[in-house]
Amino acid sequence: MYFDPVEALERDALAQLQTDRLRATVERAAKSPFYAKRLAEAGLSAASVTSPEDIRKFPLTGKDDLRSNYPYGFLTCDRRELVRLHASSGTTGNPTAVLYTRKDLEQWAALVARCMYSVGMRKGDVFQNIAGYGLFTGGLGIHYGAEWLGCLTIPAGAGNTKRQIKLIQDFEVTALHIIPSYALYFGSVLEKEGIRPEDFPPRIALIGAEPHTDEARKRIEQLLGLRAFNSYGLSEMNGPGVAFECTEQSGMHIWEDAYIVEVIDPVTLEPVPEGQVGELVLTTLTREGMPIIRYRTRDLTRLLPGQCACGRTHRRIDRISGRADDMLIIKGVNIYPMQVEQVLMTMPEVGQNYLIIIEREGYLDQLRIKVEIQDEYFVEDMRGLRSLQEKIAHKLHDEILITPRVDLVQRGTLPQSEGKAKRVVDARETN
Amino acid sequence: MYFDPVEALERDALAQLQTDRLRATVERAAKSPFYAKRLAEAGLSAASVTSPEDIRKFPLTGKDDLRSNYPYGFLTCDRRELVRLHASSGTTGNPTAVLYTRKDLEQWAALVARCMYSVGMRKGDVFQNIAGYGLFTGGLGIHYGAEWLGCLTIPAGAGNTKRQIKLIQDFEVTALHIIPSYALYFGSVLEKEGIRPEDFPPRIALIGAEPHTDEARKRIEQLLGLRAFNSYGLSEMNGPGVAFECTEQSGMHIWEDAYIVEVIDPVTLEPVPEGQVGELVLTTLTREGMPIIRYRTRDLTRLLPGQCACGRTHRRIDRISGRADDMLIIKGVNIYPMQVEQVLMTMPEVGQNYLIIIEREGYLDQLRIKVEIQDEYFVEDMRGLRSLQEKIAHKLHDEILITPRVDLVQRGTLPQSEGKAKRVVDARETN
Ligand SMILES: [Zn+2]
Ligand SMILES: [Zn+2]
Repeated sequence: MYFDPVEALERDALAQLQTDRLRATVERAAKSPFYAKRLAEAGLSAASVTSPEDIRKFPLTGKDDLRSNYPYGFLTCDRRELVRLHASSGTTGNPTAVLYTRKDLEQWAALVARCMYSVGMRKGDVFQNIAGYGLFTGGLGIHYGAEWLGCLTIPAGAGNTKRQIKLIQDFEVTALHIIPSYALYFGSVLEKEGIRPEDFPPRIALIGAEPHTDEARKRIEQLLGLRAFNSYGLSEMNGPGVAFECTEQSGMHIWEDAYIVEVIDPVTLEPVPEGQVGELVLTTLTREGMPIIRYRTRDLTRLLPGQCACGRTHRRIDRISGRADDMLIIKGVNIYPMQVEQVLMTMPEVGQNYLIIIEREGYLDQLRIKVEIQDEYFVEDMRGLRSLQEKIAHKLHDEILITPRVDLVQRGTLPQSEGKAKRVVDARETN
Repeated sequence: MYFDPVEALERDALAQLQTDRLRATVERAAKSPFYAKRLAEAGLSAASVTSPEDIRKFPLTGKDDLRSNYPYGFLTCDRRELVRLHASSGTTGNPTAVLYTRKDLEQWAALVARCMYSVGMRKGDVFQNIAGYGLFTGGLGIHYGAEWLGCLTIPAGAGNTKRQIKLIQDFEVTALHIIPSYALYFGSVLEKEGIRPEDFPPRIALIGAEPHTDEARKRIEQLLGLRAFNSYGLSEMNGPGVAFECTEQSGMHIWEDAYIVEVIDPVTLEPVPEGQVGELVLTTLTREGMPIIRYRTRDLTRLLPGQCACGRTHRRIDRISGRADDMLIIKGVNIYPMQVEQVLMTMPEVGQNYLIIIEREGYLDQLRIKVEIQDEYFVEDMRGLRSLQEKIAHKLHDEILITPRVDLVQRGTLPQSEGKAKRVVDARETN
């Protein structure tokens, strides 16, 4: 039933495992220049840990800590033990770098393989990895997991949609890894090529690496004729494989044998009650080269209450509703881009792409939403278009409490990225 | 001294090993639909092999055979045993696909690690892999080899030169993998940034994936302040790791425990004498998923006579002088692009980039060579430039026997690729 029996470990045993591993993690972390100082200052050591809840005694670690202790400040071992480096593409200043020992790579691959198994992938599956390789952890992380599981792994990389489709058909690919926004675009190419979803070989898609709504997921499932499963990870915590949906598709199990999970109020830094949205904070429990204690992910989610029907005991987090840094404030109202997507993706008239633009008019910020419309709705009837425009604006107002300007545009006219989609454009400076 | 004792195996023992492995290879190949038929037609089987020389009894295999038996015609095992697929980017028709079992991947990584060891790389080296990942074997092939050896591997991918330089400096990178034309460009960026070769951390560069001259190699060594070693491979034979220079830098050892080497006349298909240039033909000796017998590589080289001072017993091939398909015929003369490079790269006035253009004038094909000139030679003195132009044309004539037109251009003005360089442009259709 499970890839690893630990997935269904009793909660008591899991708490004991977490306690032991947290203690070992603190001991190990203290070997790094950064934590040696930080832990000594706080008067903390492995002895401070008697239960997983003791994690709250420890100070938080932020992206800035990683940046200012670049390149080796978090390292706990001889550099000669390292076999991999991944780094963020940070536009200015130091990147954040993550360093892996051989054991780290193996544990990471095993976690990713566990995720794949939990959505029904098995040895013998043909798996196409439609993701950028290189320093980005999404490519190589998923690649090593698929090989660990024993899938025929096709390192297709990003882009070149027609060639991707040819490989999928020729090798009867059964499972894909793909970014949600590119999956939507992929769906529109299949439509154009006349390939029906039921004739498209894959039965599983792993989607992640950018926030997306359940409405977008349902569209992907319909357009590609498969089941799409949410994947969550971030390079500071290895990369993909931190949390993953099981076949129940009711939240992502976060692997508590490898991470301690907290959800905190990003302002007070206090834990929020179960079920309430806050910032996800994670502690690595098995990392050798570069353990991280209480990392502020900036990702917003909530812990889901109750047990999953699949029998796994590890708690579930809800889909990522956005990043703490993503929030827009327009006319004094807090708006997350995912709220816009959620409205658009339920409307059959709306195509697979949209763009949110922030403009300035006088002293006021305004929201303009460009929306691709399905061909059959893009008629030369001005009245029909006007009424669709009003309908979209009205539905958006119900969700985000302000009325944006809505531009209807033809399919294929908005910028289409093969990597992470750029959903928001700030046009205030150029206006 | 050696990564694997087999590198210095006595020739007699090596011949015996080849015989055994060739026999096993023929037996295994016969399980594939393609070779089952091909071997039966020729009346050949494992029993036909009593020495490595018996390879000549077997029919040649060409790229067209791979294409027309795509996708699974060369496969010898259950598809469930496969864990990797690489494919060529062929512009039309079927790509060529290469399929790997887990054991194939391990043997491939071990071969690449052996190559790296032979140029002085060790566990503890910091290795930056400046190569495209994905379906191209050059990226992942080298990557797995470096991890196998135990290097800290930075999967930097292609492009973004300034970021590459930052990572090299910050992590004190000791070894690089880089395409020769990009290495030349890299050198000119270092010059511009004021980074002296002696301050540039790497001591080793692995260069391959495109034909290049020894003159280009020497320039790379000077510009980057390191030693550059030639790497040879092709995806049909796994990818990189087929042949590699040792620290003697006098030809590339081709690993005869893994491949049987022949050099044939591409027209008569007969073996050419040792030391004479012909087409390289290779047979895999350890491949499980997809053994290939007598593959015509289209690459031109020669077997070097004599023993290498390093003590390795495996024979050496000369650098690839071109591809059988690369030959230009201008005014009835056979010209290989590498001949042009060889002349240009010895001239101190010439910069790091050039372009060969074939033009038509009336009924005659003409050669035009655009040459980037070093800044200090690019003076506003028409007479000086004219004389440099004549000097280059004259030196080229000595090598290729015709006098091309030579255009001198300023540094940085010719198209610069981050992948394989496009050295020849055919402008005959547009003229
Ligand atoms: Zn579940
Ligand atoms: Zn040697």
